Amino acid sequence: MNKDRISRTIQAMEKRNLSQILVTAPASVYYYTGAWIHPGERMLALYISASGDVRLYANRLFALGGTLDTPLAEFDDAEDCVALLAGDMAPGTLGIDKTWPSQFTIRLMQARPDITPVLGSAPVDETRMIKDAQELEWMKIASRMNDQAMSATISAIHGGMTEAELAAEYVAQAGSLGSEGASFDPLVCFGANCAEPHHVTSNAALAEGDSVILDLGCLHGRYCSDMTRTVFFGRADDEQRKVYDVVQAANAAGRAAVRPGVPMCEVDRAARKVIEDAGYGKYFIHRTGHGIGLEVHEHPDASSVCPIIAQPGMVFSVEPGIYLPGKFGVRIEDLVAVTEDGCETLNALNREMIVL
Amino acid sequence: MNKDRISRTIQAMEKRNLSQILVTAPASVYYYTGAWIHPGERMLALYISASGDVRLYANRLFALGGTLDTPLAEFDDAEDCVALLAGDMAPGTLGIDKTWPSQFTIRLMQARPDITPVLGSAPVDETRMIKDAQELEWMKIASRMNDQAMSATISAIHGGMTEAELAAEYVAQAGSLGSEGASFDPLVCFGANCAEPHHVTSNAALAEGDSVILDLGCLHGRYCSDMTRTVFFGRADDEQRKVYDVVQAANAAGRAAVRPGVPMCEVDRAARKVIEDAGYGKYFIHRTGHGIGLEVHEHPDASSVCPIIAQPGMVFSVEPGIYLPGKFGVRIEDLVAVTEDGCETLNALNREMIVL
Repeated sequence: MNKDRISRTIQAMEKRNLSQILVTAPASVYYYTGAWIHPGERMLALYISASGDVRLYANRLFALGGTLDTPLAEFDDAEDCVALLAGDMAPGTLGIDKTWPSQFTIRLMQARPDITPVLGSAPVDETRMIKDAQELEWMKIASRMNDQAMSATISAIHGGMTEAELAAEYVAQAGSLGSEGASFDPLVCFGANCAEPHHVTSNAALAEGDSVILDLGCLHGRYCSDMTRTVFFGRADDEQRKVYDVVQAANAAGRAAVRPGVPMCEVDRAARKVIEDAGYGKYFIHRTGHGIGLEVHEHPDASSVCPIIAQPGMVFSVEPGIYLPGKFGVRIEDLVAVTEDGCETLNALNREMIVL
Repeated sequence: MNKDRISRTIQAMEKRNLSQILVTAPASVYYYTGAWIHPGERMLALYISASGDVRLYANRLFALGGTLDTPLAEFDDAEDCVALLAGDMAPGTLGIDKTWPSQFTIRLMQARPDITPVLGSAPVDETRMIKDAQELEWMKIASRMNDQAMSATISAIHGGMTEAELAAEYVAQAGSLGSEGASFDPLVCFGANCAEPHHVTSNAALAEGDSVILDLGCLHGRYCSDMTRTVFFGRADDEQRKVYDVVQAANAAGRAAVRPGVPMCEVDRAARKVIEDAGYGKYFIHRTGHGIGLEVHEHPDASSVCPIIAQPGMVFSVEPGIYLPGKFGVRIEDLVAVTEDGCETLNALNREMIVL
């Protein structure tokens, strides 16, 4: 059990008048206890009270007994796990993790009508948001691996190959570098597919004149990397070159805006302004970036509505893009870590335009 | 929009006095609407009322406008999606899907204190539980592919290879057969790892005398296959042979018990009795099987506490196992589809003991 993290979380609970919370996301449970559990449809919950009670509720199948220094309450499939949990809660407000499956929240409310569930993820998100030195080291290594694997993947591009083949090439490269695998399903888009922000890697084949978006990440020490590069195959026309230059400048402007004390919405503003000033504002249809760590999407957001103030130890993406429906798209994404006086970009790979 | 499925679901809602439900699992939303959406942290919900109102709430990013015949309510990241949804609900009881992230349930309760959330998955689970002819056809093809890919994977086993390498071999084989990929992370266990029911495929290397559990599945038409075979490498001792025979007999007894009208707990009992009678009862530490379809775990369970009565169209696994801690484990799993007068086993691959 990481006592420093628990104690920072209790401070954040007190600021929000939360006397008890249930932490349920597997990555958060790992963050505090060191046990990475895939609960599937089974219940998993770490109870934390402001008075310092900590208890992990887990199915006996995960065989945690004797492996952890966190107090453990175990149950099996034939037992009513929610009743076990309900018996231990104090009355009043209970903070519940945002992703906990609703079945558990609903059953807990039915068992304990004297408890009022509220959103309880904020103290956990705020603690996880500030990475310590060990976490930063893992994230830097993961991003260095990602730079190398991205570079090797770009070198493997050839005419006629499919998006899925190029994605598989990345997985093989990231594996051979000793990463623990991809941190998310590799996203490769060719041509007009680049302009669909929720395109999924397909069997579309590469053709001359296509833009190629590679949005890729791998894991080291369970921490995620995540970067995007866009290259062109065969040739690039004037519009593609112009759009690329605008996105490259927006990426640089976003990263240049990052320093302690700056609200995240200003990072978004800095990147977005470059794209708006070039007349492409309506084609930049997503937030500028997202926090990252044990999970690929964490706090803080770099969005137009995020009031969180950048602090040393935060790690997030800066990933502006322009998407011209039916034609092509460009996105350039790097991870940055906020430092005492600015930020460090964790990706070192070249951002100059490449026509293969 | 599949009107037959909606109408069967409304009948199931009426039996349970549910006048409105929110369907939120991506596979269920696909089942009714034909749209497979990966919402990530965004809200996704299909509202169904007993009076026949159906409306899909989805983020505009998924670009569903014009692609569906299901009435659509769209929102973007800057809008309060829960407020949009809350405005449309009737007061009183609202059935909520079991896996919906709690943040949405909690925010909906705060916006609409006149609504009482209850578990609302049962009508959906009961509808999806009975597969139609097209679904059964896809599942049969997926299991035939799985038989072939399993057979090729077993042929590739050689000394010194790792669990991860053997799992990658399966993925390659399932891909070359034209499947849409693995239906879950392939689970390969060597030796004592076979006795840990929640072991994750690792870099452990194969040695003489190891049991090898291969728990593998692939997708066709978005439907899952799932099977397990256990083989031995180099040699098998008397205890391994005895345990194998017991598990093989338990698998056969479980499948032989399946016919319309039999409660699922009796299928569990039939398989478990064979193992108990052989003196290994305490080493069979999980349910006998689980339903399967668009998701790898669905209704009905074949567990000791499941009262659901087998009906034609149900598809589930029969997968007894014996796990001797620190030594080895054996599991043999097949999928069965309940027919009018018994069941059809979807896997045709040999279950005789193999020592490679």
